[in-house]
Amino acid sequence: MKRFTRIADVANLDALLSEAMDYAANPWRSADLGRRRTLGLVFLNPSLRTRMSTQKAAQLLGMDTIVLNAGADAWTIETRDGVVMDGAAGEHMREAAGVMGRYCDILGLRTFPGLVDRDYDYAETVLEQFVTYSGVPVISLESATRHPLQSFADLITIMQHRPVVRPKVVLTWAAHPKALPQAVPNSFVEWMKGAPVDLVVTHPEGYELADEFVSGVHVTHNQDEALDGAHFVYAKNWSSYADYGRITNSDPSWQITEAKMALTNNGKFMHCLPVRRNVIVSDAVLDSPRSIVLDEAANRVVSAQTVLAEMLKALA
Amino acid sequence: MKRFTRIADVANLDALLSEAMDYAANPWRSADLGRRRTLGLVFLNPSLRTRMSTQKAAQLLGMDTIVLNAGADAWTIETRDGVVMDGAAGEHMREAAGVMGRYCDILGLRTFPGLVDRDYDYAETVLEQFVTYSGVPVISLESATRHPLQSFADLITIMQHRPVVRPKVVLTWAAHPKALPQAVPNSFVEWMKGAPVDLVVTHPEGYELADEFVSGVHVTHNQDEALDGAHFVYAKNWSSYADYGRITNSDPSWQITEAKMALTNNGKFMHCLPVRRNVIVSDAVLDSPRSIVLDEAANRVVSAQTVLAEMLKALA
Amino acid sequence: MKRFTRIADVANLDALLSEAMDYAANPWRSADLGRRRTLGLVFLNPSLRTRMSTQKAAQLLGMDTIVLNAGADAWTIETRDGVVMDGAAGEHMREAAGVMGRYCDILGLRTFPGLVDRDYDYAETVLEQFVTYSGVPVISLESATRHPLQSFADLITIMQHRPVVRPKVVLTWAAHPKALPQAVPNSFVEWMKGAPVDLVVTHPEGYELADEFVSGVHVTHNQDEALDGAHFVYAKNWSSYADYGRITNSDPSWQITEAKMALTNNGKFMHCLPVRRNVIVSDAVLDSPRSIVLDEAANRVVSAQTVLAEMLKALA
Repeated sequence: MKRFTRIADVANLDALLSEAMDYAANPWRSADLGRRRTLGLVFLNPSLRTRMSTQKAAQLLGMDTIVLNAGADAWTIETRDGVVMDGAAGEHMREAAGVMGRYCDILGLRTFPGLVDRDYDYAETVLEQFVTYSGVPVISLESATRHPLQSFADLITIMQHRPVVRPKVVLTWAAHPKALPQAVPNSFVEWMKGAPVDLVVTHPEGYELADEFVSGVHVTHNQDEALDGAHFVYAKNWSSYADYGRITNSDPSWQITEAKMALTNNGKFMHCLPVRRNVIVSDAVLDSPRSIVLDEAANRVVSAQTVLAEMLKALA
Repeated sequence: MKRFTRIADVANLDALLSEAMDYAANPWRSADLGRRRTLGLVFLNPSLRTRMSTQKAAQLLGMDTIVLNAGADAWTIETRDGVVMDGAAGEHMREAAGVMGRYCDILGLRTFPGLVDRDYDYAETVLEQFVTYSGVPVISLESATRHPLQSFADLITIMQHRPVVRPKVVLTWAAHPKALPQAVPNSFVEWMKGAPVDLVVTHPEGYELADEFVSGVHVTHNQDEALDGAHFVYAKNWSSYADYGRITNSDPSWQITEAKMALTNNGKFMHCLPVRRNVIVSDAVLDSPRSIVLDEAANRVVSAQTVLAEMLKALA
Repeated sequence: MKRFTRIADVANLDALLSEAMDYAANPWRSADLGRRRTLGLVFLNPSLRTRMSTQKAAQLLGMDTIVLNAGADAWTIETRDGVVMDGAAGEHMREAAGVMGRYCDILGLRTFPGLVDRDYDYAETVLEQFVTYSGVPVISLESATRHPLQSFADLITIMQHRPVVRPKVVLTWAAHPKALPQAVPNSFVEWMKGAPVDLVVTHPEGYELADEFVSGVHVTHNQDEALDGAHFVYAKNWSSYADYGRITNSDPSWQITEAKMALTNNGKFMHCLPVRRNVIVSDAVLDSPRSIVLDEAANRVVSAQTVLAEMLKALA
């Protein structure tokens, strides 16, 4: 595996999932695979789960990790070509990524969207330049439009908890005080489309995701209809794609409560975390055995370990 | 050992101290004890000594360490239950600690008091929630009201330097331009009460420590009387407990000078560092052989190693 | 080797260079040399290349690394002696360095000049105090007036790419929107003076480097004359030494372009990075095979590894 930035980078999802289940059962089974290999983790945006879980995954494989916390103001990177760099940006991605590729065997990058220029964000300009100029395998630690390590962990979690071979999985929008990226829902949809699940997406009008993600997916504005008979309820806020980056509706009735969960088929509650209690989901749901959010978080180690292991094998 | 947050967490101080002396003599004697174990260090407040010494202690035991620098603004954590989280806090401690407990075998947390709401601080709300929701052994890296790794290192240092079996130890307040927590003096007192020392605490009126710490301890407002015949002088500033978090007296005459040290029985000077020169203590004292502040700092590795080793043994 | 802060700390440059070439060829040949040794890296200023390359170098030698990012505001250190510390500085370098020397076998320090007080900067006050009070071998990660790991990497790169035994090397100033330190050019000059190269320095009037560095070096204000027949062109901006820390001339014609490179003897282009494209150097030059800037960056691992190895041998 040369890059892990989107579902299209996965040649064989079944095989990857099978590897993941083996790592979940025996985390130390490849403890020397990453010996004398260095993983560089570059965070252009803050991280708790991703940093810790990916660092732990590297340890399970015997890799060394170097973490670079590059706050947006501390490290302003130019991504345009041909520009006279006499402004704020002190370095071009060509050199920055090129240098890191010389120091590390595998690189991870976290970069959030600006939520202002949709074309720029959806072109994945920062991530794609990083891939191109680093010259080494790159793992996305969440990018402008996708969060594949999260989606893979979500899929692992669903496989572990599914009560039927082909469960019904609902992705539902819920209101949030801040405008958030579409990366998690985009990514969840593209992973579920290739998985043995029946996916339904539900949100208020105005929060339609980009066609490249939801084409062919069952989408409804009726949350109750969506939740009916669901085995898994995946809640998440996102801002508008059409009216890019805006909050166009803050309807609090989309919060996942016990009453909403009663519509499901003894459904499990999922969220990528961090989650705002009693905004996205009620305390009663989150503190009940229905909630498998900590299992999702724990599986972030498994998804990262599985992807790193595939990349290491390809390097060898 | 399941938690190390206060002296009450130590079942047998003599046994712990004996282990510490062995680690001081032979730091690498348990170099494999922490193999395949991960220590997570979470800093809600800055740290130099604690970060470096605890990371070094983990290395001596063969543990992997993941450090999370979570500045107060970067990672605002909700600790109240039942609240609608539509404000600044993006995550509840229930999830944050729960996730970290899934990634790490042992966790360390640094959290300072706000010095505004005494009940909140003295309930150790942040630390106690972290202990509860992480589900793994927790080591305090200094909390709102205590700094047990420092106090344990102080005790080790006193044992190494004591000229008599039961030395006289004086904890003295000294003025400081900023309002500081009571964590270090509280903790020092509760550790010294169980140790083979004669403890005297001295400070101006208004700086009385909480009863739960100083009940049964000899306290005087006469610094000269306290210093008379002392073998160890432990200087530290703290703000008022009664007039919570305030500086109620800035009397510079409490500074430890050569003249003050002349009252002691060839006493050693101690401070947890960082220390303001010629404010808390004069250059002459700090630069003399009387000062054992660097030994105290060095023993921070020993105290952390000893506690981590006890926790690792309990995990095995 | 007890310290690596300037060329004068190198007893035998030929021998060091020979070691470096061996590490470049076989990075893992001393994989156990740093076993059970701890490297502490203290950054008073930001870093990408230095942090990653030095951490990687330590890994190649089997050392453990502890990184301390101490932003100027987060950790204000007093360096004056005898002062009453009732201001912003919460700790004196005597204690800060002393403590770190107790935790680490080797320390690295990055500290930039203030560019206000030339005497203070050129006395290397912060670095020299760190060396004195830490009591352990210290490696400069760039200081107020020098950047020896960079210069050593530059020399290694020149040796690897030289088309003749004694190449002509040109250090040329180029304009930049911000006032930058003289550390890189100072250091480059003092390393090249002892190397088998013919060095020429060129810059506009007003950018003369300090005599202690350029005495005996061929300096010209005519860039074209300097570039004539050059095998290596090392571009770098710096602010004025005479009118200390000021930009006294912003002439854009000093930018290295294809036309300028045409004056050379098929010269290679070098820069320490980060570099501003189309300000210091044109895209055409930087994106051509003439550019060896990524090799320079890669050799930062080699220079750091070689120096750390020498220090480790001296410790053993």
